[in-house]
Amino acid sequence: MTVHYEDLSIGDTFELGSQSLTKDEIISFAEQFDPQPFHVDEEKAADSMFGELVASGLHTLCLSVRIFVTEFVNTDNGLANMGGLGLEEVRWHEAVTPGESLSLMVEVVEKEPSNSRSDRGYITFERRMHNEDDILVLSYRTVNIVGRQNPAASAE
Amino acid sequence: MTVHYEDLSIGDTFELGSQSLTKDEIISFAEQFDPQPFHVDEEKAADSMFGELVASGLHTLCLSVRIFVTEFVNTDNGLANMGGLGLEEVRWHEAVTPGESLSLMVEVVEKEPSNSRSDRGYITFERRMHNEDDILVLSYRTVNIVGRQNPAASAE
Repeated sequence: MTVHYEDLSIGDTFELGSQSLTKDEIISFAEQFDPQPFHVDEEKAADSMFGELVASGLHTLCLSVRIFVTEFVNTDNGLANMGGLGLEEVRWHEAVTPGESLSLMVEVVEKEPSNSRSDRGYITFERRMHNEDDILVLSYRTVNIVGRQNPAASAE
Repeated sequence: MTVHYEDLSIGDTFELGSQSLTKDEIISFAEQFDPQPFHVDEEKAADSMFGELVASGLHTLCLSVRIFVTEFVNTDNGLANMGGLGLEEVRWHEAVTPGESLSLMVEVVEKEPSNSRSDRGYITFERRMHNEDDILVLSYRTVNIVGRQNPAASAE
């Protein structure tokens, strides 16, 4: 059963499973997209303000999207996600090091039907990722375009 | 010569070279981080609201960071970047398809010295990525921690 726009209410919260990044994954991602010393070189990272090799914040953001898509969209009870409009207030609160287990919390904070298209609505999700010590490492909000169950009912 | 906090002024604008994403890169990235049909499957993408295979917005965001780091930080005249605090108002204005040439424009929109640490300041950059038809595809702001040339001069 697909989760449509109508099925979610403000305040609904979902705890999604945890994943981690290996040292090799961190270096390989950063070599491609964020090749700064503290993400790709252990020795230079030791001299940086982080004091050790840390994941690119972009990488932890990507990991959080992977968890969201694999556990909240691409499932038998998945969200009827049609795409995303953007991200708000992306914050990297703590550096992420190799092997840390990161879990994602997703909360519905806003919803609004589309005025022009009766088959969809906009849902704002707050997403927060914590490490295994329950320390917040990443937070942001997204606006997702979500399909409606009853496209004919354009007024709500 | 490294570009320090003092070397940048509000309104400074930099045009950075363009790069593109191949179909294989788009699919491979999305399989790892954003495995939705319209990013990984050409046939299903044709039936999506995009009508064709499009890059994950996360991928275009990563590409923009790669351009920023390789052309604005990791150069002989590179920015003394110490890390990033977050992203504001990330907007995917237009879908990006394989092979489009994407260029990045970076503008200094805010700067503020650190109150607690005399060796650094905070610089807010507006970043805008356009395709080869000069259509805006991505925009966002970042706050970067940037090293100062004269750490002793804590007051400004």
